[in-house]
Amino acid sequence: MHRFYAPEASAAGELISLPAEEVEHLSRVLRLRVGAAMHVFDGRGREFEAVVESLTKIDARVRVGSPVVSAPELPIALTLAQAILKGDKMDDIVRDAVMLGAVAIQPLLTSRAEVSAAALERGRRRERWQRIAIASVKQCDRAVVPTVHEPRSLGDLLQTSRDGSPSAPILMLVEPGAAPQAVPVRELETVAPPQVTLLIGPEGGWSPQEVASVPPSCRMVTMGGITFRADAAPSIAIAALLAHWRLL
Amino acid sequence: MHRFYAPEASAAGELISLPAEEVEHLSRVLRLRVGAAMHVFDGRGREFEAVVESLTKIDARVRVGSPVVSAPELPIALTLAQAILKGDKMDDIVRDAVMLGAVAIQPLLTSRAEVSAAALERGRRRERWQRIAIASVKQCDRAVVPTVHEPRSLGDLLQTSRDGSPSAPILMLVEPGAAPQAVPVRELETVAPPQVTLLIGPEGGWSPQEVASVPPSCRMVTMGGITFRADAAPSIAIAALLAHWRLL
Repeated sequence: MHRFYAPEASAAGELISLPAEEVEHLSRVLRLRVGAAMHVFDGRGREFEAVVESLTKIDARVRVGSPVVSAPELPIALTLAQAILKGDKMDDIVRDAVMLGAVAIQPLLTSRAEVSAAALERGRRRERWQRIAIASVKQCDRAVVPTVHEPRSLGDLLQTSRDGSPSAPILMLVEPGAAPQAVPVRELETVAPPQVTLLIGPEGGWSPQEVASVPPSCRMVTMGGITFRADAAPSIAIAALLAHWRLL
Repeated sequence: MHRFYAPEASAAGELISLPAEEVEHLSRVLRLRVGAAMHVFDGRGREFEAVVESLTKIDARVRVGSPVVSAPELPIALTLAQAILKGDKMDDIVRDAVMLGAVAIQPLLTSRAEVSAAALERGRRRERWQRIAIASVKQCDRAVVPTVHEPRSLGDLLQTSRDGSPSAPILMLVEPGAAPQAVPVRELETVAPPQVTLLIGPEGGWSPQEVASVPPSCRMVTMGGITFRADAAPSIAIAALLAHWRLL
């Protein structure tokens, strides 16, 4: 069953419009027609049966039907705070983090990431990653669309946590030997916290200054003694944490 | 410290030749010269200091020095039996499986993999994957070079296991709902077996016939309720298993 993102969907019987990108996907890519059956999800966890009731090049209206069950969400609100990598590597990272159940992606500007906030803004990268997150949700049967936040610096993120705003635990993935206080995954609490932010560094890893800047409340974690390529690290780290917490 | 694969290395004091590809890497890529210090590893777990003693376009001889410590091997001999994916996706899979500590890669011919043994042979794909495995070992500080086996069919692999040859447990990753007997990772034994073979399917998953052909001794496993893109599945599954066994 094809699934579409319809943030307006809220109750059976309504006639709602789909967002422009969903209209494009529905009519040009999948070539669905009036009368076609589908599912729509609101991006906040609810999903419904639906039927196309009218269709033009720029507008698709669908009649919302009965609620249906989506893939269950994880019992942990995981934010991936990912140092921005070169080229299009972030695309796969966003896609896989969404499939693994992350509720938010926080792109991070770090000292070794060769990219500026201005360049990201010009390239409308955040908007691109948000679209990828929606596409990934459509594929993996979730009904929650994770938020891709505006890129911010590591220092800014750590300052916010230091100021005592939402005190979700922060885990920072570091390379073996990067910090004496780092522990392997197996030494973390075996019970999953309700929320967690996972920091993953850029190609070449965190700088020594970045590692030193981390407050004691942020735990440093290694994947045993293993070093990864930067673009494989986030999905490997998320999978390892979820398995450690017995969520896989 | 640059690391080179030197299968001839066995004791301090020896003068040994490097394989042709390592000569290429040493002289043309890294532009090292006579007198350069390096490490050499034998591919079977031993590593030594070494110094370049003579160098031509086609030959590099190095004097083997004191033994050094490599990255520790996992206490589990994990074979990744991976359905062959399209294009160059196997390259990253081999690279990451080696970084995650696999001791062997078994490429699998499956009913939904659009590739033949003859095409793989013509393209010398196994040789390519073996080279990638060596390159990955050089990056991740292991001193063991995993073997990339000749591609074989799933049926052939299962027949061998059914015939009672080496009885390492076999785990088959399946999509949620693909088999009623499948269990999530958290329901597996918490103690790592000494050996395991992990079967990962192709794009589109295993065919129903393939799932039905599996002997009862092979356990089917899901990653919770999560579905992945085919090329992300192997590293996610290996990471989840290693974390479940408290090896990360």
